[in-house]
Amino acid sequence: MRIAELSRLSGVPAPTIKYYVRESLLAPGERTGRNQARYDEQHVTRLRLIRALLEVGGLSVAAARDVVAALDSPQTGSRKVRGAARQTVPAARTGPAHPEEPGQREALAEIRALVARHGWQVEEHAPALAAAARVLGALRGLGQDDFADQLDSYARAADAVAATDLEIVRKRPDADAMAEAVVLGNILGDALLAALRRLAQAHRSAELCD
Amino acid sequence: MRIAELSRLSGVPAPTIKYYVRESLLAPGERTGRNQARYDEQHVTRLRLIRALLEVGGLSVAAARDVVAALDSPQTGSRKVRGAARQTVPAARTGPAHPEEPGQREALAEIRALVARHGWQVEEHAPALAAAARVLGALRGLGQDDFADQLDSYARAADAVAATDLEIVRKRPDADAMAEAVVLGNILGDALLAALRRLAQAHRSAELCD
Repeated sequence: MRIAELSRLSGVPAPTIKYYVRESLLAPGERTGRNQARYDEQHVTRLRLIRALLEVGGLSVAAARDVVAALDSPQTGSRKVRGAARQTVPAARTGPAHPEEPGQREALAEIRALVARHGWQVEEHAPALAAAARVLGALRGLGQDDFADQLDSYARAADAVAATDLEIVRKRPDADAMAEAVVLGNILGDALLAALRRLAQAHRSAELCD
Repeated sequence: MRIAELSRLSGVPAPTIKYYVRESLLAPGERTGRNQARYDEQHVTRLRLIRALLEVGGLSVAAARDVVAALDSPQTGSRKVRGAARQTVPAARTGPAHPEEPGQREALAEIRALVARHGWQVEEHAPALAAAARVLGALRGLGQDDFADQLDSYARAADAVAATDLEIVRKRPDADAMAEAVVLGNILGDALLAALRRLAQAHRSAELCD
């Protein structure tokens, strides 16, 4: 199909499609002339994914490109799934943690202790450790120590979410489908959980005030 | 203190501080001359909050301004807390949901049914309903129906998080401190939960592969 048809089917304006191609988010169409290219059904599917990552997941174009590259990577098996998982660590959104930020070192030690307390075995330099420490350090820096006191409750809830996540991933037929479940479950799933959390809060706080 | 001292204490460059003032994120200093202003300790505290919302919470400048305005609002009591809570609904990050998006209407009905099943009483047009529906609609549109099948598990985990959130908020001494707990707990808390979720996943998936 031509770009006009791709635009109609996907609901994405043609100049935006061209921008995604320039930014390596979308594979170029097959050249059929000096100024023409042919697109296929895969482009429609991929555009739907890109829009979901950007608009619903709130990713930047750069972060979405990394996610898409992980899905397209020629790796196989658990390497592929792990590579996809790595691209969904929220550090991608919030920038790297700086070990020299005040309190960052203490916060990292606190997160490591939490992880050990819950018996979680993770790689020593897993980016999610630094990401969690960064938030904890920020909360402590803002004097919000009562959140830090509830780390174990939050960790238990996060573990319940992860158990459900893994149940979904495990049932997927192959590594490609698993990688897709990891990416969408993490990025769109964070947004879903945030919204459900607000709904549960609204209910519980209404109970409180009645 | 002068802007140079404020910059040193907060770690925020002076041009960035001026930008925050122009964008109404930060109150202007007290004018002391044609090109000079005096800042105080409150500016230091507020700059720390702004940086956390932008860099750790991943908010846009516009979203951070709305959050800060809710904290500064002259409202009192539960109105103030509810106003702050409203500014933390992730729709702020991902843009409004369009009821005409394909599948959006069905997804909203599905979320309403979920909320009813869990006995959650929320306002009929709570923005978090549309936010949750938007993610669910995107997941279904991408053929990821196995996530939709696990909505109840995710809702239970979100409710456990909300119970902890409310426990923290309830212990705060006044509405201002409660509003701050809601804002920071929700915005930084989402980032913390996302990171903890990744850590729990890493542990559980390592178990799976061993």
